Amino acid sequence: MNHDKGEGAGTEGNTTHGHKPFKRSRSHFPDRVTADGRDGWPVEAGRYRLVVSRACPWASRALVSRRLLGLEGALSLAVADPVQDDRSWRFTLDEGGRDPVLGIRFLSEAYDARERDYPGGVSVPAIVDVPSGRLVTNDYQQLTLDLATEWSALHREGAPDLYPEPLREEIDEVMEGIYRDVNNGVYRAGFASGQEEYEAAYTDVFRRLDLVSERLAGRRYLVGDTITEADIRLFTTLVRFDAVYHGHFKCNRSKLSEDPVLWAYARDLYQTPGFGDTVDFDHIKQHYHRVHTGINPTGIVPLGPDLSGWLTPHHREQLGGRPFGDGTPPGPVPGDEEIPARGRP
Amino acid sequence: MNHDKGEGAGTEGNTTHGHKPFKRSRSHFPDRVTADGRDGWPVEAGRYRLVVSRACPWASRALVSRRLLGLEGALSLAVADPVQDDRSWRFTLDEGGRDPVLGIRFLSEAYDARERDYPGGVSVPAIVDVPSGRLVTNDYQQLTLDLATEWSALHREGAPDLYPEPLREEIDEVMEGIYRDVNNGVYRAGFASGQEEYEAAYTDVFRRLDLVSERLAGRRYLVGDTITEADIRLFTTLVRFDAVYHGHFKCNRSKLSEDPVLWAYARDLYQTPGFGDTVDFDHIKQHYHRVHTGINPTGIVPLGPDLSGWLTPHHREQLGGRPFGDGTPPGPVPGDEEIPARGRP
Repeated sequence: MNHDKGEGAGTEGNTTHGHKPFKRSRSHFPDRVTADGRDGWPVEAGRYRLVVSRACPWASRALVSRRLLGLEGALSLAVADPVQDDRSWRFTLDEGGRDPVLGIRFLSEAYDARERDYPGGVSVPAIVDVPSGRLVTNDYQQLTLDLATEWSALHREGAPDLYPEPLREEIDEVMEGIYRDVNNGVYRAGFASGQEEYEAAYTDVFRRLDLVSERLAGRRYLVGDTITEADIRLFTTLVRFDAVYHGHFKCNRSKLSEDPVLWAYARDLYQTPGFGDTVDFDHIKQHYHRVHTGINPTGIVPLGPDLSGWLTPHHREQLGGRPFGDGTPPGPVPGDEEIPARGRP
Repeated sequence: MNHDKGEGAGTEGNTTHGHKPFKRSRSHFPDRVTADGRDGWPVEAGRYRLVVSRACPWASRALVSRRLLGLEGALSLAVADPVQDDRSWRFTLDEGGRDPVLGIRFLSEAYDARERDYPGGVSVPAIVDVPSGRLVTNDYQQLTLDLATEWSALHREGAPDLYPEPLREEIDEVMEGIYRDVNNGVYRAGFASGQEEYEAAYTDVFRRLDLVSERLAGRRYLVGDTITEADIRLFTTLVRFDAVYHGHFKCNRSKLSEDPVLWAYARDLYQTPGFGDTVDFDHIKQHYHRVHTGINPTGIVPLGPDLSGWLTPHHREQLGGRPFGDGTPPGPVPGDEEIPARGRP
């Protein structure tokens, strides 16, 4: 995501809004990595590094896509510390505080290599060109679509089609409403600078969730009968809902776990290989509560919620659906990418 | 309650703690209104005024007791604005911003009349002597016990015995653990100045709630088979749990509504005349979220939670129990004390 107004490149972005309504900035580097390399960045195994925070819902889309498509070997992964400092995302989880492949301490160094004195925010997800150390793209909306469609030569055998041609119009339409009211709606609620702005966002969030819940009551996935990009984008918000959006962002009409349909849908995906195995609840909670000092000045991280429910049976298989279409589930998580116990239910 | 460290006499009390752990101050005016008048304050119909905030759990104990015992005619009621200003509790809900009986704008005026330049916090519940305008007591722990035992000459016909002699030891013991871990535990969690202090309080809250839930699984009330002071004191915390303690105070392992026993117990009491008819959810939410700027700097008041569940059947009557013992339920709420629609589920 573009963190300069969202989750904060540094902390000031989200602590002082004045009275301007929360507005998500557009991506600044919209280059694309494509099969034909028309932007100068051809798809190539081992050439690029995906930089994420596991806290970030926008970056987490790419984590899920990469797993489902089996791109772990072709596109390596750097995981930033969930808590930024005033130089933004940093590799303090790595030995010596440096990303072992890029050799940098801050993601901003890859931004600087791309454009000196770039004045915008430093955001994840980011794709960095390993040989030059330069940022290629931080376009979170396009990035996963390209993984699904442009990177297909490198997909694993049995990879699902996450953006099937005949369904794209429907997928785009569903994603648009979910983006506006849910993915971004929770941020508009959480970072509202006034009561009215907050109430409008809260209303959008729950009106859309109610519609989505209705839609999902009789069908296993949002579009068609397989997992698509639309499910990935809804999932990365839903999985954070009770842990951070419900309390910290005041989206508290009800918990996700109080909507039987959405809760079962989210658990179904969580328990599907490639989804839950990318989620670090500890990173999520640490990031939101420690970084957003404008709405949580003590920096205290809540101990709850109880996460054990994520592992309970969901019974959604009774609705049919073919999770991976004609494909197969992804294999196990690479050993060095496993989520530590404290980040799991 | 004593608001100078709790809900704030003025706002500074709860916004700057430094690194001292949260500690509730002792009451400063422990005089008692008794049948024999030994402190100079004999029980007398029409002489005293009870000053509360409907936001405050400690004051709300007295609201419930007064209703159950039918003391509305004998002990009149002043309801303060749920949002204090820098002069603390104020009568801005009344015409002209003055309590019509005491003629004062701020509760602090009654404190000053009792002791000039009193340096402590101004707290509710307070009993004020109407003829002299002087504060009599703000001892929230003793106040309701005295309503139950010293004011009996003025109780309505059929008033329950809320503090029955043979059960007092057990009631006191149960109340002590609930006070420490629950009534005050949620405040220790919410006003903690550090992670460790918060986690200890959170752990106390849920350990005690689990014990209480176990106790209440097979019995309708906490002690004996009738409503007692112990139930009143647990109720005033439980009724606030999902609205303010769960999110605002980070007591978020689970909502009250996720514990089937405690949730049914709380609904049972809420639906009992004298309990729910004293509760103003709007006052509760406004107070906590707008006054505690140290933990909610935007002052934005969450729209949730959905409160409709409070009115659903609880089925606790199947456990037997005699809510009012040999007595009867209280009559209807006096017209001028009815809770406005926006404060009800």
